[in-house]
Amino acid sequence: MINPFFENEGPFKIEHILKFIDLDNKNLNYNGSISDIKDLVSADSKSITFFHSQKYKELASKTHALFCITTESLKKDLPNKCKPIVVDNVLIATAKITEKFYPNSVNDNFDNEIRNIKKTTFKDYVTYGENVLVGHNIKIGNNCFIGHNTIIEKNVQIGDNCNIGSNSIIRNSLIKNNVSILDNCVIGKKGFGFFPNKTNNAKYPHIGLVIINDFSEIGCGSTIDRGSMSNTIIGKNTYLDNQIHIAHNVKIGDNSIIAGQVGIAGSTTIGNNVKIGGQAGISGHLKIGDNVEIAGGSGVIKNVPDNSKVMGYPAKNIKEFLRQNK
Amino acid sequence: MINPFFENEGPFKIEHILKFIDLDNKNLNYNGSISDIKDLVSADSKSITFFHSQKYKELASKTHALFCITTESLKKDLPNKCKPIVVDNVLIATAKITEKFYPNSVNDNFDNEIRNIKKTTFKDYVTYGENVLVGHNIKIGNNCFIGHNTIIEKNVQIGDNCNIGSNSIIRNSLIKNNVSILDNCVIGKKGFGFFPNKTNNAKYPHIGLVIINDFSEIGCGSTIDRGSMSNTIIGKNTYLDNQIHIAHNVKIGDNSIIAGQVGIAGSTTIGNNVKIGGQAGISGHLKIGDNVEIAGGSGVIKNVPDNSKVMGYPAKNIKEFLRQNK
Amino acid sequence: MINPFFENEGPFKIEHILKFIDLDNKNLNYNGSISDIKDLVSADSKSITFFHSQKYKELASKTHALFCITTESLKKDLPNKCKPIVVDNVLIATAKITEKFYPNSVNDNFDNEIRNIKKTTFKDYVTYGENVLVGHNIKIGNNCFIGHNTIIEKNVQIGDNCNIGSNSIIRNSLIKNNVSILDNCVIGKKGFGFFPNKTNNAKYPHIGLVIINDFSEIGCGSTIDRGSMSNTIIGKNTYLDNQIHIAHNVKIGDNSIIAGQVGIAGSTTIGNNVKIGGQAGISGHLKIGDNVEIAGGSGVIKNVPDNSKVMGYPAKNIKEFLRQNK
Repeated sequence: MINPFFENEGPFKIEHILKFIDLDNKNLNYNGSISDIKDLVSADSKSITFFHSQKYKELASKTHALFCITTESLKKDLPNKCKPIVVDNVLIATAKITEKFYPNSVNDNFDNEIRNIKKTTFKDYVTYGENVLVGHNIKIGNNCFIGHNTIIEKNVQIGDNCNIGSNSIIRNSLIKNNVSILDNCVIGKKGFGFFPNKTNNAKYPHIGLVIINDFSEIGCGSTIDRGSMSNTIIGKNTYLDNQIHIAHNVKIGDNSIIAGQVGIAGSTTIGNNVKIGGQAGISGHLKIGDNVEIAGGSGVIKNVPDNSKVMGYPAKNIKEFLRQNK
Repeated sequence: MINPFFENEGPFKIEHILKFIDLDNKNLNYNGSISDIKDLVSADSKSITFFHSQKYKELASKTHALFCITTESLKKDLPNKCKPIVVDNVLIATAKITEKFYPNSVNDNFDNEIRNIKKTTFKDYVTYGENVLVGHNIKIGNNCFIGHNTIIEKNVQIGDNCNIGSNSIIRNSLIKNNVSILDNCVIGKKGFGFFPNKTNNAKYPHIGLVIINDFSEIGCGSTIDRGSMSNTIIGKNTYLDNQIHIAHNVKIGDNSIIAGQVGIAGSTTIGNNVKIGGQAGISGHLKIGDNVEIAGGSGVIKNVPDNSKVMGYPAKNIKEFLRQNK
Repeated sequence: MINPFFENEGPFKIEHILKFIDLDNKNLNYNGSISDIKDLVSADSKSITFFHSQKYKELASKTHALFCITTESLKKDLPNKCKPIVVDNVLIATAKITEKFYPNSVNDNFDNEIRNIKKTTFKDYVTYGENVLVGHNIKIGNNCFIGHNTIIEKNVQIGDNCNIGSNSIIRNSLIKNNVSILDNCVIGKKGFGFFPNKTNNAKYPHIGLVIINDFSEIGCGSTIDRGSMSNTIIGKNTYLDNQIHIAHNVKIGDNSIIAGQVGIAGSTTIGNNVKIGGQAGISGHLKIGDNVEIAGGSGVIKNVPDNSKVMGYPAKNIKEFLRQNK
């Protein structure tokens, strides 16, 4: 998929890329151009990728990337065709290179080439409120409603029969059909990802999107951050109540129900038919299976297998929790 | 009370009502019209009501409704004058019928017959900010302030001496006198009520209101959902801090104090003089008595009697909790 | 520092001040004027101060204030030069007097002398969105971005290279250089401080500011309340994620990282290099040391010393918590 939101400033010669991260020329003997930076799976033979943890050994061994930013100890797991670029800190180097390919992905400056929807052709078939602002190159399907003061920034795509509330902001997002996004939401801002640094943290580029699938609903005052390298995804017919926070790279399956004030930290995956009670929190980088029920107020800090019911902090089997906490 | 917010599309003949829920003609032998759908208590002899749980047996036995949607096993508890309409799923049937009576109560489309307050007679006596939008048929009392970009949708009533902040949205609400609603609030959107369904959840109609009584204050970024069949009520002189979520049908008494980020799930009742600490969560359908204190961060999952102090998750007597958790 | 936000209506004669709190003339034998009300430390020989708890005995003994509102039992700790004014409830009396000095600090009426930024000289050097509103006497540095529908109320100061998102409201705040404030934030509203009262709570005046230091970032949908007598302060290079609530008088150090939906109650102090996981809550009036790590979802109810890692509710040593909660 061509990313409609972040313009790729590449290709770059590998020598230039090394300069971005203050490495000397390492005689990499490659004269062609590197067209993009991608994760291990989606990288092709014109791309550079990154490999920073033993956990991704399996994926690394199969990557099609031409170059890979990695460490001395991990480089042995790369295939022969993929040339390692050894650095001290893979994520910082990756952030620096990504920022060169996608300079607009670091900050979230507002879209300042925006117009009142009244001055666009959308006025002819969208039902819109007062002060609705739309950016360039957006798409809006048939039978859509967009409430007062809502801002749809450039390149956003909205399908048919969507209902967007008032005072919401949507950027870097693909909204499919029959989706409701209620009032005061912020969809698609950059995630809370950066490298701490004593005087001025290094912000991590976020080139991912938010994708909200058919028939889903997002409650008032919710925030859904876009992904860094991958996307943040809300499945089909999944309902989120008010004041929910979904961090970058989270993927939620279909037919799930998430009650008010839940928070899901970065890169966690939630299955299908999952029910999460109000104010529950789920740590980052976890896998929550299908048909899971998480009681309101729980704090989930490890993976939850399919068909489980959990409760408590840290969340455990609900029967066990209730027996221990009479 | 005539509901000023949702127009009743009735009356309907009982045969039509049965068709809404795909029931055959059952020879109900009634030729008159059904004027409304109401709960067991407020239904009169022109209304249809619903009875879905043993818990409401007492109320059911006294209903004045002409018809009642119920189950085979519950119908025996209805008075003789009230004719049962037996269905498999009472709540789904009730939702379908309610939607026919009140078609505008299912979705929360923004009010698109709204005008800038400058173009209304309110400009003569309300102190208002920039871009304030007001719907048709609203009332605003004397000495009121309405901040920038705030939206007061149709039929809303606001009493005297009220102070509404900026960027807030108020719909389907009755705001009494001397009330403060601060910035970025959403008051009166539909509750998070629906019937799960594999490809497209059935949204439950919400014909209730939000009522905020005299001298109360609602903090920034709070959301208060309107009721489904009954109302969501905030008592007199009750103060809510920032980022609080109050779900549909919740009733909070007078002189209560609720700190930041608290969430109260649907249909729970909170007494008078209650203090709730920050980030506490209260499950749905509970009764919290008068003079109760709930410590910050607690998770309340059962009723709390008058004059109790509770803490923990699940919340229990505060002294017991602190002794067990040194 | 002269407070740029709240105009001091003083000076007042001491007889007038006594009348504000319904005290008879006590023959205080002072004919001069009282110029201000300040806390024990910052009060000078023209000020009145207040002393309500044994905890502040040390500070009270050194105050330079001319008068001090206090109780019969505490007055003995004041220096000879400071004349006690004995009352039953020190905080209520202080609130009443503060309100007379600073009448605009009690309510948060929106700034209604505001203009579209297009009509100001800021249009020449600020990058601004649609419907941006700015009050009188504000300062905005070089190279700043201000997003759509954002409101900067009177007297606010914003440094260089700041990035303010859309739909945010900033009042009573000093924003230093290189600060990012994302979308839908409310910065600088009055804190949740008042004296409960059966029919109409007495709101506490908030004459403090919010100060956000260099290189910090505030996530979407966050609320930061201004201080009552002192200021609410966010340190340098401190990052707050989305939907965070920071109550009045909180002080957060430098280089701290606070994840989504955290809440920090009033007057708590957080050190430097602190990491707080998502949804954690911290009670009021606590001291959290430097280099502390607080796990997501924790509830902190007592002070945490430097270099500690805590988890749980109530939060305790993380290793102990995890051992007890396998």
